[in-house]
Amino acid sequence: MNIQEIIAKKRDKRKLSKEEIDFFIEEYTKGTIADYQASALIMAIYLNGMEEEETTNLTLAMANSGDILDLSALGTVVDKHSTGGVGDKVTLILAPIIASLGVPVAKMSGRGLGYTGGTIDKLESIPRYQTNLPEEEFIANVKKIGISLIGQTRNLAPADKKIYALRDATSTTESIPLIASSIMSKKIAAGANKIVLDVTYGSGAFMKTKERAQELANTMMRIGKLAGRETVAVITPMEEPLGRNVGNSLEVVEAVEALKGNIAEDVKEVVLALGSNMLKLAGKGDNLEENKQKMLENIQNGKAYAKLKELVANQGGDVSYLEDTDKFKKAKYEMPVVFEEEDVRKREKIEYSNNRESINNIDMNSKENSVKAQENDMDIKQRTIKRLPAEEIGKLSVFLGAGRMKKEDEIEPEVGITFYKKVGDKVEKGDTLAVIHANNEEKGKEAVERLKKIYEIN
Amino acid sequence: MNIQEIIAKKRDKRKLSKEEIDFFIEEYTKGTIADYQASALIMAIYLNGMEEEETTNLTLAMANSGDILDLSALGTVVDKHSTGGVGDKVTLILAPIIASLGVPVAKMSGRGLGYTGGTIDKLESIPRYQTNLPEEEFIANVKKIGISLIGQTRNLAPADKKIYALRDATSTTESIPLIASSIMSKKIAAGANKIVLDVTYGSGAFMKTKERAQELANTMMRIGKLAGRETVAVITPMEEPLGRNVGNSLEVVEAVEALKGNIAEDVKEVVLALGSNMLKLAGKGDNLEENKQKMLENIQNGKAYAKLKELVANQGGDVSYLEDTDKFKKAKYEMPVVFEEEDVRKREKIEYSNNRESINNIDMNSKENSVKAQENDMDIKQRTIKRLPAEEIGKLSVFLGAGRMKKEDEIEPEVGITFYKKVGDKVEKGDTLAVIHANNEEKGKEAVERLKKIYEIN
Repeated sequence: MNIQEIIAKKRDKRKLSKEEIDFFIEEYTKGTIADYQASALIMAIYLNGMEEEETTNLTLAMANSGDILDLSALGTVVDKHSTGGVGDKVTLILAPIIASLGVPVAKMSGRGLGYTGGTIDKLESIPRYQTNLPEEEFIANVKKIGISLIGQTRNLAPADKKIYALRDATSTTESIPLIASSIMSKKIAAGANKIVLDVTYGSGAFMKTKERAQELANTMMRIGKLAGRETVAVITPMEEPLGRNVGNSLEVVEAVEALKGNIAEDVKEVVLALGSNMLKLAGKGDNLEENKQKMLENIQNGKAYAKLKELVANQGGDVSYLEDTDKFKKAKYEMPVVFEEEDVRKREKIEYSNNRESINNIDMNSKENSVKAQENDMDIKQRTIKRLPAEEIGKLSVFLGAGRMKKEDEIEPEVGITFYKKVGDKVEKGDTLAVIHANNEEKGKEAVERLKKIYEIN
Repeated sequence: MNIQEIIAKKRDKRKLSKEEIDFFIEEYTKGTIADYQASALIMAIYLNGMEEEETTNLTLAMANSGDILDLSALGTVVDKHSTGGVGDKVTLILAPIIASLGVPVAKMSGRGLGYTGGTIDKLESIPRYQTNLPEEEFIANVKKIGISLIGQTRNLAPADKKIYALRDATSTTESIPLIASSIMSKKIAAGANKIVLDVTYGSGAFMKTKERAQELANTMMRIGKLAGRETVAVITPMEEPLGRNVGNSLEVVEAVEALKGNIAEDVKEVVLALGSNMLKLAGKGDNLEENKQKMLENIQNGKAYAKLKELVANQGGDVSYLEDTDKFKKAKYEMPVVFEEEDVRKREKIEYSNNRESINNIDMNSKENSVKAQENDMDIKQRTIKRLPAEEIGKLSVFLGAGRMKKEDEIEPEVGITFYKKVGDKVEKGDTLAVIHANNEEKGKEAVERLKKIYEIN
């Protein structure tokens, strides 16, 4: 067996055997297969696809490329994973609710990369919260208080890490077999026996359409089944950012507020959809609607918030920051993004000038044109927000310092964006659309201008 | 512009602009684009193809990635290139003929890699022949005696070298845009203004069918035209090895014999087809048949052979080896491959046992079967050689030490294979099919057995 033959097979759209996939992953992890050979194979997989059996074999090979966590001491452990989003603070809210309902939560989360954030970065904005615990302590914490959230300590799925980095550098991220195997290999290595997946679609997600998200979800559910891990997927939109804030400490504050009862509608929907399925998988009730009610109850009666405090305290974090969220360090500059009617007009003009016929009409029928202008003036008062593309917001938050383009980049926990107006909201001249939290004045000003352009209003 | 976007474009089957192709080649040559990014792009090109304009831009970018030879002092220079073969000693015969007819030959040749040989390796089996001359001397030689054959001295098309090595390691060699741009970039950098291409097809060639060879030839001719280099292509078969010998000094001896008038029919055909076109391009006559006659005349009257001696002497080689080819060092072992009828029978048995119906017929009609067996005995006496696949022969010659699998490998000039029977020849039991020239007894014996199996006889 050699890698050239394996590449040639996938290049010719043939099915790879389990032995071939195992060979590739083992030798690539060891380094005897070069990056340039792996990237040629990955491009061939991207273009020619993989059958489900191949994807499952790839998943298992990547899971087995490093340590496999043994969580059997905890009984049924339900893990949750999102395929990525902007402003996604769901884990911070969902995990304490679920733990407060008696389901053990032993979750290893990632850091943000590219325009999507990471739960570990967010948790680290709570002073002294330890994300880096030894495995025994992690398991002991779950036994003691029913929940622990940490970063990846062990060498989980190293093959996936290498392949993920390659995919990023070679424009081969958006491939269902590659995404599915990447996610599922990490979940399997992380030791959970039940998995709930949040498969996002839209501008801020890998999958741009609901259909593709459904396809990805189906693939991952079937891999889960073949790998003996019961897996459920929930499809959720990620067209605009989730909730009211993007940025690390801003999202922690939002999560705390949510557990105190003040939860944004879109966040609530995702939290309930995922949580009701997690409870079902954990044997806490088959009726999803009833499960949602139990979750809402534990927000109302304070049990979920109490569990969050317990978690933070148990991992060394300063709970006083949760009690008084004003204690969180603020960014140096808070700059409002104000809606000026002019912005909309400018956009209209550009659209006209791109349309020769419209221009001619304006030139030749000056009377009719002036009537139109008056009409425009009349409905200046109220406009509607049409789009607030999550991907653009994610990139803007990285620009501000809330995320990383490269692994080595440092993040600034306090910068980000607070949204006062989102898609569907009505706006009038002078309304504050959002606030930019920046540590650098120039960057802040540029972000204000960029955000004005990102909002699509008509 | 960044490489990820360029990869994504080709991944999505879109056309790359000249600027994008130039960016890729420049940055890859410099090393700011990584091998793993280049290999992903190359796999995407392999699978999604390139339009002619893209292939031409790729060719020119690769040609411009290093030095471009200036041969303008020599007037019209006609270059010749073959897309690869086994036993291909055409240049050694063709170049002196053409030079003897007054067309300057200034040719840089390559070394063998994989199962195809290289003219420079062959020339170096002539004691003291210098293949490594400075450029001024190379041009001075052509001015003085009308011919010089050397190895690549300058940094010609370094981007092609990098990409070629990648393609070899990632199973992306057999792609028309990649082959065409690789060949044409080297030819353009090598300074010729007229190019004759020998595009081979069959078992021993990149292109397995005549149709694919024609397609490759058309692509290269159009690139040549777009690049301002008049280009003609001749399509020649490479199913079995060319001529009577494979191996470096063995092929030099065969070339010398050919110039003395004893030329194998298949070699003669290729030499005349290419040479008649070279003469036409050089303005020495538009009638190809007349051109062939001129070439044959210069073999008969000794002028072509005299030109070879002049070339060898001028580059420091020992001409006495040409006069008396027995002086060439022999391999330690010469082992005949003898045709034994048994080999054919064995093959037949295997074929029967693979065919259940035939077996049943034999079992049930034992009488008819015995008649068949007698018939077999009757025509034992004469068999015909059906196939002698060039690729297998090329690999066998590499095994013997005549070629390299890796650049660093050393070759043994005297090892190889001499063929006494080729496709279409009748053979009887006891006939010598070929002789293996080996320096190692074990290797020689193994080669004999392997060659017996490579011959397809029925």
